[in-house]
Amino acid sequence: MRGFELVKACPETGARAGLIYTKHGVVPTPAFIPVGSQATVKALAPDDLTRLGAKLILANTYHLYLRPGVELIEGLGGLHRFTSWDGPIITDSGGYQLFSLATLRKVSNEGVLFRSHIDGSEHFLTPELSIRLQERLGADIIMAFDECPPYSDDLDAIRGAMERTNLWAERCKTSLSRDDQGLFGIVQGGTFPELRRYSAQFLTSLDFPGYAIGGLSLGEPKGLMNTVVRETAALLPSNKPRYLMGVGSPEDLVCGVSGGIDLFDSALPTRVARNGALFTLGGRVNITNACFKDRDGPVEEGCDCYTCQNFSAAYLNHLFRSEELLAYRLATIHNLRFIMRLMEGIRCSILDGSFSSFRDKFLSCYQPTDEETRINQKRRWVESKRK
Amino acid sequence: MRGFELVKACPETGARAGLIYTKHGVVPTPAFIPVGSQATVKALAPDDLTRLGAKLILANTYHLYLRPGVELIEGLGGLHRFTSWDGPIITDSGGYQLFSLATLRKVSNEGVLFRSHIDGSEHFLTPELSIRLQERLGADIIMAFDECPPYSDDLDAIRGAMERTNLWAERCKTSLSRDDQGLFGIVQGGTFPELRRYSAQFLTSLDFPGYAIGGLSLGEPKGLMNTVVRETAALLPSNKPRYLMGVGSPEDLVCGVSGGIDLFDSALPTRVARNGALFTLGGRVNITNACFKDRDGPVEEGCDCYTCQNFSAAYLNHLFRSEELLAYRLATIHNLRFIMRLMEGIRCSILDGSFSSFRDKFLSCYQPTDEETRINQKRRWVESKRK
Repeated sequence: MRGFELVKACPETGARAGLIYTKHGVVPTPAFIPVGSQATVKALAPDDLTRLGAKLILANTYHLYLRPGVELIEGLGGLHRFTSWDGPIITDSGGYQLFSLATLRKVSNEGVLFRSHIDGSEHFLTPELSIRLQERLGADIIMAFDECPPYSDDLDAIRGAMERTNLWAERCKTSLSRDDQGLFGIVQGGTFPELRRYSAQFLTSLDFPGYAIGGLSLGEPKGLMNTVVRETAALLPSNKPRYLMGVGSPEDLVCGVSGGIDLFDSALPTRVARNGALFTLGGRVNITNACFKDRDGPVEEGCDCYTCQNFSAAYLNHLFRSEELLAYRLATIHNLRFIMRLMEGIRCSILDGSFSSFRDKFLSCYQPTDEETRINQKRRWVESKRK
Repeated sequence: MRGFELVKACPETGARAGLIYTKHGVVPTPAFIPVGSQATVKALAPDDLTRLGAKLILANTYHLYLRPGVELIEGLGGLHRFTSWDGPIITDSGGYQLFSLATLRKVSNEGVLFRSHIDGSEHFLTPELSIRLQERLGADIIMAFDECPPYSDDLDAIRGAMERTNLWAERCKTSLSRDDQGLFGIVQGGTFPELRRYSAQFLTSLDFPGYAIGGLSLGEPKGLMNTVVRETAALLPSNKPRYLMGVGSPEDLVCGVSGGIDLFDSALPTRVARNGALFTLGGRVNITNACFKDRDGPVEEGCDCYTCQNFSAAYLNHLFRSEELLAYRLATIHNLRFIMRLMEGIRCSILDGSFSSFRDKFLSCYQPTDEETRINQKRRWVESKRK
């Protein structure tokens, strides 16, 4: 990573338009980062991602460490060559997956002893090893190793994880051996303002090239999340990118930008697509519903994605009901293009000074998915991945 | 269908190069027809098919009649518009699937009473209904309704099915109400030369615009199949296209062309791709094998497909082991492109007079899959689809 340029800040909200420079290209922000945990954005090829406007892709150190192995990817020329995606890449540190997917054996200041969710094999991951693995994978932006506890109102537990995350962030920085990757620190502290403040102060004192906000979108009420995002973003330096981890529903992206966030990642748009839930400006629709069975015309009128430009809602309905593989790709293309267009629209509105009206108009049309449904869906997904 | 032009015949073998004219485009023959039973070639979109050189796609009346329904597709503008594939399409009559997938209730001269393999619902399909359905789907080439019995040495059973197929072919022709689709008759008769001769004579007396050879590739030895193909093709008029149904392994395509066949269809290249079996000039390789785990370079050096041009064998190995959806698309693209290139090479060699040496060279390199493995794989597949 070669730096961040703040191009314009909205005078009414916290929204910012910027540019992140990397040796694999420039990322205009605010940006959504499609998730390719296992070195592939599920159901898509790199040319699909280029066509739908993705500029930055996330891969996951935890997954790639377990399979196919970091040494193997390094030996084949690193993540860019392995995936054939030559744009910017970010790798997560593995922290989040250890606490959501793996079976934890023991967490200490030294690191995390865990069992693989794939084969039960035992591994020990430390801040130093996470950095070493991420250096070998070769992404443009890498993340500090963090402890990401579940959503809870247990102040002591959240404080402990935050303090350990701070300690680990310092060790991550110290252990860096490459200077061409941007290492982002991760602010933890749950929904406690005083913990977030402490974490943000500590991390900014270490002067990272970017900062992430972790430990949100874990089941807390959305209003609370937005408050924490806004308050935490305000504690971070304005000349560095701010990355809200694990957030990707359309309404959360708009609110996150409004709260001062520049980068987002989430498996949500691609995951729900594979269940037939497709984004429209009015909210999510389920394409498997009977009302789409004979619907001529695209899922969303006016959408410029490959799916909507070429196929009727009826055809998608048929593909999903027939469990045809093409269904998952077409739905994923639509949802990611919807999110990319949303981010493009947000950025244009920031640049031309109309962001707050863009936000209000979007939120007045878009009907968010019911909170309980959303949380249940996420829980079922995490449980299914653990099996 | 607007006609067939025989461009060149090989003086040493039965091989022919031709052109089939349809209102959706010209199909150079010999040609392989990718199978899109449920109005999608599994894992691929229409632009994938265009890029890999497919000229003609098959869809299946049986599948589409059951789901989503022929009336629905007709209401949405027919198969071309429904699938967004604007090249030539052929529909099978449903006969083969009734005898391989559905639960048969009763076969009489009138038609076939069967239960859907999807929901067990009862249906009655006749030659007249099959034609009516295919006219409403709107393909460029349609097939006569045939009885396709399993491979057997029971002469009486095979003769009965052949005679019924002849009877049905006549009724199919009589019931045509459109004149812009080419109706092909289907020669049955198993592996009995006298039955094949009778069937071919009867059908050619009805003067169809094309003829298919059905009832092969059902488990009989390959040598026997090739003999029947060659002998039957020789009974068919040279000014009409000849279509060998259900054949698609590389060696069978080369032998089929040598025996005088112009068109082939089979789910084999796409089905085995989804199991990780990829074609190379040396034979099929299984990409999930450990030897590919760290193999830099493509599955096949020199292959011009999107997969080989962009991804290492190691990446494909990783995608298959991780059960990532992209695996199935990339493997399908490779196998179909392999087959398309093979057919292009065959056609060029017929045109420049070198077909027999092309054939001999190909067959001397290509190691066919062991016959027992092949038959077992096919049986398991048919059984899995019945569930």
